[in-house]
Amino acid sequence: MYVILVYDMGEKRVGKMLKHCRKYLNWIQNSVFEGEITEVKLKEMLYDAKKIMNEDEDSLIIFKSRNERWLDKEVIGQERMSTDNFL
Amino acid sequence: MYVILVYDMGEKRVGKMLKHCRKYLNWIQNSVFEGEITEVKLKEMLYDAKKIMNEDEDSLIIFKSRNERWLDKEVIGQERMSTDNFL
Repeated sequence: MYVILVYDMGEKRVGKMLKHCRKYLNWIQNSVFEGEITEVKLKEMLYDAKKIMNEDEDSLIIFKSRNERWLDKEVIGQERMSTDNFL
Repeated sequence: MYVILVYDMGEKRVGKMLKHCRKYLNWIQNSVFEGEITEVKLKEMLYDAKKIMNEDEDSLIIFKSRNERWLDKEVIGQERMSTDNFL
């Protein structure tokens, strides 16, 4: 399945979450990720994400689509971190 | 059509962009918006968004889906600004 993940984290936790999400998805903007992922892998990712988050303060939203073709993407300005090869 | 909009803006421009996007879409997280919008309204919104942006530094990504039902949304932690009634 194809997912878009966005988070809003406290500054202390943001680095850890970034590292975590990049293990599973492509980093396309500051706190935005996208990619193909299985249901099982997504569950695993969210399970560990919850350990990093402070659920009273932080927010993580996932949009899931069965098929990437159901979504069109348009980028204006810089497409950051589209090649996932640094850091 | 249903869209998800995410941006990453320089600090000086972020307030103006927030205000602009809220005229068209629902604010659901720090720099994330969603909602139903027509093709015409979206073009109008992006036309003005480009005037606010510095396209060499800023990034705006829009995911479009013809039908909201093709997307499932899961929220973990806080769903910020889901009711669009303050500010």
